[in-house]
Amino acid sequence: MTHDLDDRMHFAIDLARRAGELGLKYFRDLDNLTVESKGHQDLVSEGDREVELFIRAAVAATYPNDGIVGEEHAAVTGTTGHVWVIDPIDGTANFVRGIPAWCVVIACARDGETVVGVIHEPSTDETFHGRLGGGAFLNGKPIKASDAASLSEGSVGTGLSNRGSTKNVVVLLTLILAEGGVFYRNASGALMLAYAASGRLLGYVEEHMNAWDCLAGMLLVEEAGGTVLKADPMTVIGKGTRVITGGRNVFPSLQTLCRQAFRD
Amino acid sequence: MTHDLDDRMHFAIDLARRAGELGLKYFRDLDNLTVESKGHQDLVSEGDREVELFIRAAVAATYPNDGIVGEEHAAVTGTTGHVWVIDPIDGTANFVRGIPAWCVVIACARDGETVVGVIHEPSTDETFHGRLGGGAFLNGKPIKASDAASLSEGSVGTGLSNRGSTKNVVVLLTLILAEGGVFYRNASGALMLAYAASGRLLGYVEEHMNAWDCLAGMLLVEEAGGTVLKADPMTVIGKGTRVITGGRNVFPSLQTLCRQAFRD
Repeated sequence: MTHDLDDRMHFAIDLARRAGELGLKYFRDLDNLTVESKGHQDLVSEGDREVELFIRAAVAATYPNDGIVGEEHAAVTGTTGHVWVIDPIDGTANFVRGIPAWCVVIACARDGETVVGVIHEPSTDETFHGRLGGGAFLNGKPIKASDAASLSEGSVGTGLSNRGSTKNVVVLLTLILAEGGVFYRNASGALMLAYAASGRLLGYVEEHMNAWDCLAGMLLVEEAGGTVLKADPMTVIGKGTRVITGGRNVFPSLQTLCRQAFRD
Repeated sequence: MTHDLDDRMHFAIDLARRAGELGLKYFRDLDNLTVESKGHQDLVSEGDREVELFIRAAVAATYPNDGIVGEEHAAVTGTTGHVWVIDPIDGTANFVRGIPAWCVVIACARDGETVVGVIHEPSTDETFHGRLGGGAFLNGKPIKASDAASLSEGSVGTGLSNRGSTKNVVVLLTLILAEGGVFYRNASGALMLAYAASGRLLGYVEEHMNAWDCLAGMLLVEEAGGTVLKADPMTVIGKGTRVITGGRNVFPSLQTLCRQAFRD
């Protein structure tokens, strides 16, 4: 089974890199990119759609009986218990405006538990990958979540979406600053989760994320020795989850702040 | 005089790129980098100091009678009315933690007015440059500040420092969100100013920035057709300034929000 997971992991790494190359073609030709709005501050481009189709075709060719769930197209039901959960371009708002902080996200879940996660940032050629029980890596080198003891020792990433309350975000930021901490928001949640996994950020928290944005990164943080609020395997792929992740020493503080901030 | 400014501009572009190469050497060897704290969440590394010395030596060799003001070493008084204002690594907190969003910033001011500005991000090889009256460019191509009419059409960059009030930052973020806007903070103020100049962000605002962090970017925004709150040429190099910059259509809204947020 581990052998099978390793195969899927290597497949996902290679696929994310090839998808990133395709994404870069659109990114380098932004003047001709078609962009639509899916709602307030929620954009989708031709690049998102085409990169997702490219990833879906590759998954279907190699794992034809697996399920697929992606941000931009309808879900495919599989028969193997494995589901590929993909965000072709996380950070679309950056992508369409020319900000290089965007990434390709590919996760594979088995019965609702993430077993493979890959986050690839084409602009800097950084590929973060992890496998359940197999550690987390950046461009092949092991990474570690932060061992900081206090929020005053670094930055905490967070995000915004139409699904979370902006009031709650303000409370969260206020609490982080009151602890002597600093917030960070580069508008790519998956990339910030990868930064939390590599100790570049103390952690990443968001009231709600969709599965394609968060599953890969949550696995990476855990495999990098950090702590992650467990998602419900029965619902996470369909409905998303609250995300609280961080170095093991700061995680309790993050969880306390999130309890205060993310009230309904 | 324009000819002289063009010489300085080309010198600054070349110098920022060479300084960026040197910075990358330290960035790629973070395990051996010496880092010190200058205060709460205010770091300086061997990389900052050495890159600044490299820039200072180049300026002294080519423009020996100009002044130099940099973040990490003592000011040099000149006799020509020109002062080079440099931040060897803007975004040091990113740099020392491995986040690729950091940049080399070189401005040249004449009698307190910025005449040349260069912001170079080594990790993505993006060089933003501008000259007073000569336009603003990214890797040689003209850039334009946002023409958006509303804060709901994009993101507003902002920053934090020990010199501004964290309470005021929270008020600012609350106001941006109330306007349907989104905040952005990648922890490199100069880079976010360059993003404002290129229309990637609607604008960039911060209660107080030091001259080495903001002069180059403020010139870029103005030369890219955006609007900038004028700094006092008598005091800006020594004392820094409030920074309000943005596309010309959203600038009045940004100014209104900042008036409400940045109370003493």
